[in-house]
Amino acid sequence: MRFVRFRKGDETVHGLVEGLKIYELQGSIFSGAEQTGAVFDLDEVELDIPVVPRTFYAAGLNYKTHLEKMSVAVGMDASAPGAPDIGYRANNALIAHECPIIIPSDATDQVHYEGELVVVIGKQGKHLTPETAMDVVFGYTIGNDISERSWQKSDKTMWRSKNTDTFKPMGPWIETDVDLEGMTTTVRLNGQEQICFQTNDMITGIVPYLVHMTKYLTLYPGDVIWMGTEGESPNLQDGDVVEVELSGIGTLRNPVIRLEDAS
Amino acid sequence: MRFVRFRKGDETVHGLVEGLKIYELQGSIFSGAEQTGAVFDLDEVELDIPVVPRTFYAAGLNYKTHLEKMSVAVGMDASAPGAPDIGYRANNALIAHECPIIIPSDATDQVHYEGELVVVIGKQGKHLTPETAMDVVFGYTIGNDISERSWQKSDKTMWRSKNTDTFKPMGPWIETDVDLEGMTTTVRLNGQEQICFQTNDMITGIVPYLVHMTKYLTLYPGDVIWMGTEGESPNLQDGDVVEVELSGIGTLRNPVIRLEDAS
Repeated sequence: MRFVRFRKGDETVHGLVEGLKIYELQGSIFSGAEQTGAVFDLDEVELDIPVVPRTFYAAGLNYKTHLEKMSVAVGMDASAPGAPDIGYRANNALIAHECPIIIPSDATDQVHYEGELVVVIGKQGKHLTPETAMDVVFGYTIGNDISERSWQKSDKTMWRSKNTDTFKPMGPWIETDVDLEGMTTTVRLNGQEQICFQTNDMITGIVPYLVHMTKYLTLYPGDVIWMGTEGESPNLQDGDVVEVELSGIGTLRNPVIRLEDAS
Repeated sequence: MRFVRFRKGDETVHGLVEGLKIYELQGSIFSGAEQTGAVFDLDEVELDIPVVPRTFYAAGLNYKTHLEKMSVAVGMDASAPGAPDIGYRANNALIAHECPIIIPSDATDQVHYEGELVVVIGKQGKHLTPETAMDVVFGYTIGNDISERSWQKSDKTMWRSKNTDTFKPMGPWIETDVDLEGMTTTVRLNGQEQICFQTNDMITGIVPYLVHMTKYLTLYPGDVIWMGTEGESPNLQDGDVVEVELSGIGTLRNPVIRLEDAS
């Protein structure tokens, strides 16, 4: 099943996507939602982010080639990706499918995309095991972890480099039925394919991550975990359009706007 | 005014504290809440955290002596506190006033308290100026940023050191009317005063922090910013009780439980 959030007048409501229709839902998609009877055309509504994360986790360096590239770009140690120390991102930065990524005027030209699989948690869980870990997973969506590399290198935290407003496109929806083993991630810039990789070819996979995280922390419905990206990105420019397609989920598309210096 | 969240049957509701009474509220405390007419005795209800943060910010090293002590404890550079790079904490770790801080059995003995002023945001704001910054502040509460120093040193992120479940006591309520200049923070361990410092004697104060953060990010109602702590802490032990008192707000009190190794 495919769950969206979309704008209806002044509010954001939940819906179930079937084909090109959205069936409006009420209640929680995690604990039991019902159809209201209202139906909308998918291409006539404005989508919102598919979930407002309770906690916004991100796995960081979790693919081999990306790790090597980042070791050069921001001075990380490529030889030691080892421990799956989960990181955090901030809700202020989230934007929906089709919303513009806005690059501040004082950013360098090193602003990059990172196409990522996003795990959406649907049940509370702690001390998960390899056998129980997937029980807490509700579904999957797509994330684009926009990153300003000079700030990533200079700042003590990633508050600007990865959490500037609009730097976290997520959507277009949550898909509950996927083939993780067969899934590919394709990133296109202005329609041109930049990279295509096996989505599940992670250094630390979903199950080991969930087991490791929940030794110390409780996952809750609505938490999201961004699983990292592969490869590297060219510098994003004003007017670019970035598409991240995950087979079996869909395509997250966002235009890029670069602000000019006010001076 | 003093706003709490408390347990009423199976739900958590908002209330206004006056003296030893709580007047139940409905609606949002940020955009306009009304009294329901129900009244409770403050000492007969179970308090919840006073706000579920939309984004949970933390200022990190923001007092002079704490910075010096941490440079020794976790290998930080005490000479360069400079840039107010805001950090993040995780909602899973939040617990209310009187709830136990639970130290995992594999933590070292270096588990410390950090008594902090917490700024609660009540209005949306970006590109704040020194003149407008305080307009977005709704009120203040108290935080205790429990930290496991060996994990803080060893891990790439602070996911375990500061975000293990129960490591973020916050409360007991939000106070909207405070005297920041005259405010003192007092931390007591088992009734014995450990430190008392001027709460507002920060390296980067609230206004400069808000101005700096909102160059890049939008603050929203319900966001919280933990402003850092002064001094250092002895190692917390099973059976300890930590109290953080901020004059004009109140006292956040939490007992400590250390889990024994299951083996």
